[in-house]
Amino acid sequence: MRVGIYGYGNLGRGVETAIQANSDMELVAVFTRRDPSTLKIKTEGIPVVSSADILAWKDKIDVLVICGGSATDLPKMTPELVKNFNCVDSYDNHSSIPAHFAKVDEAAKETGHVALISCGWDPGLFSNARIYANAALPQGNDYTFWGRGVSQGHSDAIRRIEGVLDARQYTVPVEDALAKVRSGENPVLTTREKHTRECYVVAAEDADKDEITRQIVNMPAYFADYDTTVNFISMEEMKANHSGLPHGGSVIRTGETSQGVKQVIEFKLTLDSNPEFTGSVLVAYARAIGRIAQRGDTGAKTVFDIAPRDIYAGTYEELLAHML
Amino acid sequence: MRVGIYGYGNLGRGVETAIQANSDMELVAVFTRRDPSTLKIKTEGIPVVSSADILAWKDKIDVLVICGGSATDLPKMTPELVKNFNCVDSYDNHSSIPAHFAKVDEAAKETGHVALISCGWDPGLFSNARIYANAALPQGNDYTFWGRGVSQGHSDAIRRIEGVLDARQYTVPVEDALAKVRSGENPVLTTREKHTRECYVVAAEDADKDEITRQIVNMPAYFADYDTTVNFISMEEMKANHSGLPHGGSVIRTGETSQGVKQVIEFKLTLDSNPEFTGSVLVAYARAIGRIAQRGDTGAKTVFDIAPRDIYAGTYEELLAHML
Repeated sequence: MRVGIYGYGNLGRGVETAIQANSDMELVAVFTRRDPSTLKIKTEGIPVVSSADILAWKDKIDVLVICGGSATDLPKMTPELVKNFNCVDSYDNHSSIPAHFAKVDEAAKETGHVALISCGWDPGLFSNARIYANAALPQGNDYTFWGRGVSQGHSDAIRRIEGVLDARQYTVPVEDALAKVRSGENPVLTTREKHTRECYVVAAEDADKDEITRQIVNMPAYFADYDTTVNFISMEEMKANHSGLPHGGSVIRTGETSQGVKQVIEFKLTLDSNPEFTGSVLVAYARAIGRIAQRGDTGAKTVFDIAPRDIYAGTYEELLAHML
Repeated sequence: MRVGIYGYGNLGRGVETAIQANSDMELVAVFTRRDPSTLKIKTEGIPVVSSADILAWKDKIDVLVICGGSATDLPKMTPELVKNFNCVDSYDNHSSIPAHFAKVDEAAKETGHVALISCGWDPGLFSNARIYANAALPQGNDYTFWGRGVSQGHSDAIRRIEGVLDARQYTVPVEDALAKVRSGENPVLTTREKHTRECYVVAAEDADKDEITRQIVNMPAYFADYDTTVNFISMEEMKANHSGLPHGGSVIRTGETSQGVKQVIEFKLTLDSNPEFTGSVLVAYARAIGRIAQRGDTGAKTVFDIAPRDIYAGTYEELLAHML
């Protein structure tokens, strides 16, 4: 399967690493909006190409993994690129997924391509965990806890505050709430009761730290609804202890199959590197999209459309003998 | 979706309970090898029919859920019943799954039916957990822990010992081993290091309890490779404290996406009732098999062939808006 990577930030590098771990997948080119000569990729001998020249690769790529941001990149990129390529993206703006799906679906069907949208772990593997749990336990309650992990959106929000040189925000699930959910109690939990937010901030020497703290903890949508702690640290400490991008979380569904008979389903991820794991999931689903395209299917897809066998490298005989 | 239940033991009753919880599914008949007049089912107004008369129901049932045992029932029942019905079974003899699949596949294709084999939670949801985790983490190690839960096979094996009136065996995962696996250590674990076996036995008044214990702990395949504890209790205590059939367990895959970058994936079930949960999973997949049959597909299937959207009752629009 010949794979192209479109966009080479943290996620693009994660996809590249994952392709190296899958012997049936081959990286053929990395596309960038930057000057290609400024980009040094990890895989030897693979061309770095200007995104402006991508159409020359139309027949040389089975699946293009689009590694752009959900805010402004993917809503434009995926509907455009799917006109010439089978694509996978990680669009994660949950409330706008139906609109994104519709745009991609139209462009894909018009041109005979397939695109998987909103892949990764949430949306992605967590979405699958939700649907399996809901189907197996139709009467119940869903819970999603995230973390402990770095939220890049929240870290960026802190960085935009005056006097902040660098920042890292960890989303932390409240252990007591997790324990209540896992016990099958079906608690009703407020936003504040589910997660806390832990911030590590490098401030400029002359910055007003109290003012920075005030601005963080009161920031609407991002922090105001949470118990937030702010820790000021040095740039050295930031580099030494907060350079990774760990993440994870749990999707839990609890319910009863009959009066008083509790059933609890949990899917949990503990990730040292969010972009490497997300990249790995995107590559597994790129395999499925390549296969689906070969069968002649077209349009937008989500992980809900993909049978598990299609993301797996081995044969069906291996699956029957060893995985079932 | 019109559903029939074939076999009315613990699992059949679990399927019946699950159908009541799914408003798009309708129970139309229960089939039994016993005298139908001796059977009292939970759903009012539904006929109990002799299994000898099942062919009269050929056009009145969309999916037949076969609730027989894997040792002798299902290897005969599913290949036979699929000649006239779309079927779901819970065949769980892992080493013979490929042979069972082949027999069912041939009979199903010859007659234009679909059958899902080996559904439930293991095989079933645990199998899906394995394939998703393997695809997302191609370099890693798989672990499955079962319990704490009642193993009916092990309980039956104890009951066959002379002087035993009743018995219940709990399979218990070793917490220390679980903790090591969850930490991403990738330990190599022997059978004895992963699970212990806890037995509760009601002995006849004149029975030799030491001899019963000796026979249990030395029983090949069932107990000899485990640390086994045997507790003699009264029939009253058995009924009061061990009448449920709880079970569950964890499928865990741990691995690295690059040097030193650990990723841990866990799917965990904590079930008050194994047969009710298994029944619920079978009903969700019966929905999928009904839909697949309507599309004209034929042959044997496993959970690996079923896209998540097909087991879910709601619309795709609902999935996009709320589950992704």
